[in-house]
Amino acid sequence: MGGPVGGERPDEPAPAVSGRDTKALKVHRASRPEGTRVRAGAVEIGGPGFVVMAGPCAVEGSEQVERAAAAVASAGAHVLRGGVFKPRTSPYAFQGMGEPGLHVLAEAGRRHGMPIISEVMEPAQLPLMEESTDILQVGARNMQNYSLLRALGKARKPVLLKRGLSATLQEWLLAAEYILDGGNEQVMLCERGIRTFETELRNTLDLAAVAWAKQRSHLPVIVDPSHATGVPELILPMSLAAAAAGADGLLIEVHPRPEQAMCDGHQALTPERFQTLMRRLPAVLGAVDRHLWRPDGPAQVARAR
Amino acid sequence: MGGPVGGERPDEPAPAVSGRDTKALKVHRASRPEGTRVRAGAVEIGGPGFVVMAGPCAVEGSEQVERAAAAVASAGAHVLRGGVFKPRTSPYAFQGMGEPGLHVLAEAGRRHGMPIISEVMEPAQLPLMEESTDILQVGARNMQNYSLLRALGKARKPVLLKRGLSATLQEWLLAAEYILDGGNEQVMLCERGIRTFETELRNTLDLAAVAWAKQRSHLPVIVDPSHATGVPELILPMSLAAAAAGADGLLIEVHPRPEQAMCDGHQALTPERFQTLMRRLPAVLGAVDRHLWRPDGPAQVARAR
Amino acid sequence: MGGPVGGERPDEPAPAVSGRDTKALKVHRASRPEGTRVRAGAVEIGGPGFVVMAGPCAVEGSEQVERAAAAVASAGAHVLRGGVFKPRTSPYAFQGMGEPGLHVLAEAGRRHGMPIISEVMEPAQLPLMEESTDILQVGARNMQNYSLLRALGKARKPVLLKRGLSATLQEWLLAAEYILDGGNEQVMLCERGIRTFETELRNTLDLAAVAWAKQRSHLPVIVDPSHATGVPELILPMSLAAAAAGADGLLIEVHPRPEQAMCDGHQALTPERFQTLMRRLPAVLGAVDRHLWRPDGPAQVARAR
Amino acid sequence: MGGPVGGERPDEPAPAVSGRDTKALKVHRASRPEGTRVRAGAVEIGGPGFVVMAGPCAVEGSEQVERAAAAVASAGAHVLRGGVFKPRTSPYAFQGMGEPGLHVLAEAGRRHGMPIISEVMEPAQLPLMEESTDILQVGARNMQNYSLLRALGKARKPVLLKRGLSATLQEWLLAAEYILDGGNEQVMLCERGIRTFETELRNTLDLAAVAWAKQRSHLPVIVDPSHATGVPELILPMSLAAAAAGADGLLIEVHPRPEQAMCDGHQALTPERFQTLMRRLPAVLGAVDRHLWRPDGPAQVARAR
Repeated sequence: MGGPVGGERPDEPAPAVSGRDTKALKVHRASRPEGTRVRAGAVEIGGPGFVVMAGPCAVEGSEQVERAAAAVASAGAHVLRGGVFKPRTSPYAFQGMGEPGLHVLAEAGRRHGMPIISEVMEPAQLPLMEESTDILQVGARNMQNYSLLRALGKARKPVLLKRGLSATLQEWLLAAEYILDGGNEQVMLCERGIRTFETELRNTLDLAAVAWAKQRSHLPVIVDPSHATGVPELILPMSLAAAAAGADGLLIEVHPRPEQAMCDGHQALTPERFQTLMRRLPAVLGAVDRHLWRPDGPAQVARAR
Repeated sequence: MGGPVGGERPDEPAPAVSGRDTKALKVHRASRPEGTRVRAGAVEIGGPGFVVMAGPCAVEGSEQVERAAAAVASAGAHVLRGGVFKPRTSPYAFQGMGEPGLHVLAEAGRRHGMPIISEVMEPAQLPLMEESTDILQVGARNMQNYSLLRALGKARKPVLLKRGLSATLQEWLLAAEYILDGGNEQVMLCERGIRTFETELRNTLDLAAVAWAKQRSHLPVIVDPSHATGVPELILPMSLAAAAAGADGLLIEVHPRPEQAMCDGHQALTPERFQTLMRRLPAVLGAVDRHLWRPDGPAQVARAR
Repeated sequence: MGGPVGGERPDEPAPAVSGRDTKALKVHRASRPEGTRVRAGAVEIGGPGFVVMAGPCAVEGSEQVERAAAAVASAGAHVLRGGVFKPRTSPYAFQGMGEPGLHVLAEAGRRHGMPIISEVMEPAQLPLMEESTDILQVGARNMQNYSLLRALGKARKPVLLKRGLSATLQEWLLAAEYILDGGNEQVMLCERGIRTFETELRNTLDLAAVAWAKQRSHLPVIVDPSHATGVPELILPMSLAAAAAGADGLLIEVHPRPEQAMCDGHQALTPERFQTLMRRLPAVLGAVDRHLWRPDGPAQVARAR
Repeated sequence: MGGPVGGERPDEPAPAVSGRDTKALKVHRASRPEGTRVRAGAVEIGGPGFVVMAGPCAVEGSEQVERAAAAVASAGAHVLRGGVFKPRTSPYAFQGMGEPGLHVLAEAGRRHGMPIISEVMEPAQLPLMEESTDILQVGARNMQNYSLLRALGKARKPVLLKRGLSATLQEWLLAAEYILDGGNEQVMLCERGIRTFETELRNTLDLAAVAWAKQRSHLPVIVDPSHATGVPELILPMSLAAAAAGADGLLIEVHPRPEQAMCDGHQALTPERFQTLMRRLPAVLGAVDRHLWRPDGPAQVARAR
């Protein structure tokens, strides 16, 4: 049985989806009507349990990661995030700690019992990343890096595919199709805001894209409200909205001291704000027949379904 | 006491809002921290009660309006919508019934005990519209029609100001400022999707704009998921997401027979789908300490959850 | 004989234009294959002569207008521009001098033998504007102000219709269709930059829209590089490019002292820069078989190069 | 002496460029005020000579390439283009001939005395591409593929860097900075249209970006009107406009039989249309003191002005 579809209850008939694409794709819901469930360590994504991935934008050192990991773990996050290879607009910006950072992240993940997710930027990094991470993240700028997508089709770890800054919905699904077509069926889509004329916020979070993707595709859909808004004050309401829209999880930047972050500190939540978010999520999830994911599975959370 | 702010509980302190605008405006929250409540007939918008405005895109005749009004009233809608002056891209498209349509709409509203909302396109229509409608709607294409905004500043009825297709958040607030500055403080903002590169859906619903506007301004914020998505299947999840994001209400197109509509039938909900939506809203509203508006106020709606 | 079409020489066959619109419109080239020529005073727009309209963004007083008019007239401009009713984003910005400003502008035009163009914002201003101006300008924010368009369809003066900030090409033509359908065939289209994600410049000048409109429609097309770029350094190259792309004229902001302007001074040319532009235009126009418009017609303008 | 700057004559002082970036970059004009000249075989790009690169979107076979090469060579093109590694939105679309196609292209180039340009998609292709091509093209989707940019910084061949579909001007320059910072100074920028709300044409050609880049940077700027418009009828006027705006060259798709092309045939010019374009360019180039590049240099092309 798959997770709910775009705000619909599981016991209601799946909505008829109109569309302009006629060619059947592996990524389409018709290819797997029950929905795909992705496994990262013990965590399952795409079922009724809602998964929260949290941590710093960039791994900066072991103390920072440990503090972030401890904070998000105690607040109830399921997956630890942290970038070690950082795609940066300027060649002179901090480019990430690289391999040493990966070990720091992996250790923190083990210590706190959380699988880890980190970004892979090129095929050459794959052997290392496959060995050390639990989820391979593809950044928005690489969504149509087809060489990378092809390589990920052969990877043995799940992939979280961020939507490109100006990728259409069809292009997003077709990018996922590259990975599925290569043989890797453990793919998640991630909406992280698109680039529009609006400049007040960092990007424009497209939650209709989430509901659309849930209807059109069988892949789990994750929302990244940190990059989407770039403003800590909006991450709580957008996380609740994502849950209500039918997302399967969140990817959130949390930093023990945002004002000292080497990367995107302006949009990171403090541990306190993240705790508030985790306290507020269950009520909205319950309203759409979901719940925060738990190791003991959905049995205990039975809502008589 | 004002309505909740952008996903925050009313009893939590309002978040500090960073911003680039330094000039204090009447539209800013600081000018009325408790929030503005708009009155349309007996209905109050901007308090804890969440208000649903529904009805056909265009008034086509008395039978159609009566059937739509009966359907949305019985499902629990609070305000009846219907256009009689229709701004259309082509001069050869149906331009609305005009004044006779207004009387049809007003009568249906009276019959079912609902105040009505209808679009005003130019200052010359104001005397008629002020007399016959309860809320004056400004369409997206007229958001920066300053002559109209100035005239509405002198109107004695509340105004629902739709965000322009490519209006920035600052321009949206400044358009409202024209009306407030003219002396009419009964203004609501309405997010109805912005124009982006994405073509799969009609527009891109910007729910972060809703949370942002709730924090930055004291005006109630309404969401129009019908124009924002243009797809009936997405109206339910986007309505739930809007409620979770902190919106104060919805504006939804409902048509007794969408396939026969003279305007935008492709995006209208059937009465059945609208009923489903109204059944699903309370749980999400409850999760953010809101409830569907009721004449007898919030006292009775104790959260027995 | 009509003006050249989108970079094509007049003596070459008009290109076949592919398109998705099937309904024949009055605005389509097929309705008047020879092209429309607009008359403003003695000036003809849409023939082989290329017309330059120049002057300040806003009329600020008689000295400023006189200095601007003298400068642009001596440099060879054909039409004097100046706003007296100013649509401004903020209600607290300078809103224009109104009717007194119009008389100032009209007098300066008479003194220097130039017809004048000024913006009309609402139907109620039309009687005054029709009497005092030679071309009625519709601003980008009013492109879909259908009440205004309908009124202009009855006006006895030519109309310059600016493309909306996010108007599609089809919507632009359909807005013109409103005016043509009302009976006024003296319409010019004006490309003034569209709103995109790019923020370095004020707008994105869409010169392909100019060539497209010349092929698809019989109406003259004017380019406004001042609003399109917002940067004085780019107005010269964009004016030359517009001429090469097949535009029929330019609308340019010139201010005797840009740093003191009450409106958009940052994008106004000084008289000196405007002179340079007027000196540089003829060579590019000659390369596409056009020339600066002259009262005595094209015969005398033999290319003595 | 460097090439003209954004529509300015070489003998006029370079315009003061306002800007928001304060950090000095290698890519900024101040780092090389005289302008960069790129060498591809015998061809020089960035001087007064204007360079035309033409050929099919994709190499499909030796006969097709030979016919295209012969056509563009005889019309006066300077560089032969053709893709062998094709980034395609769908994994099921034609992905290019790969290495065998490269040899076909290189041979045709040799036969007709033209250097060749072809797209490189990943670092692993670099050794082969460096050996066989004269210019390494980076596609729009890879503009922020930083692993690729870093590798190109070490390459011994010039790079043509296409602007990303939604890349800001600053991001475009910073992407070039990655290559310059790596040690490869032979870089050209290429404007190929950006993604906007407009759907009538494939993309929106941003010619102001060309003039801006010429002023802000010392790198040559090439325009690709084929991808920018997607419509053969607009390629001529946009090519003339690009020349007038100050571009240093064009990249144009020409196919012997567009209707049979395996990739983007809808936007390819026929050899006949391409001939017309080459006949029309010199007059516009002359009007801005440029000329089509010739092996014997600019001396002979004096226009004694």
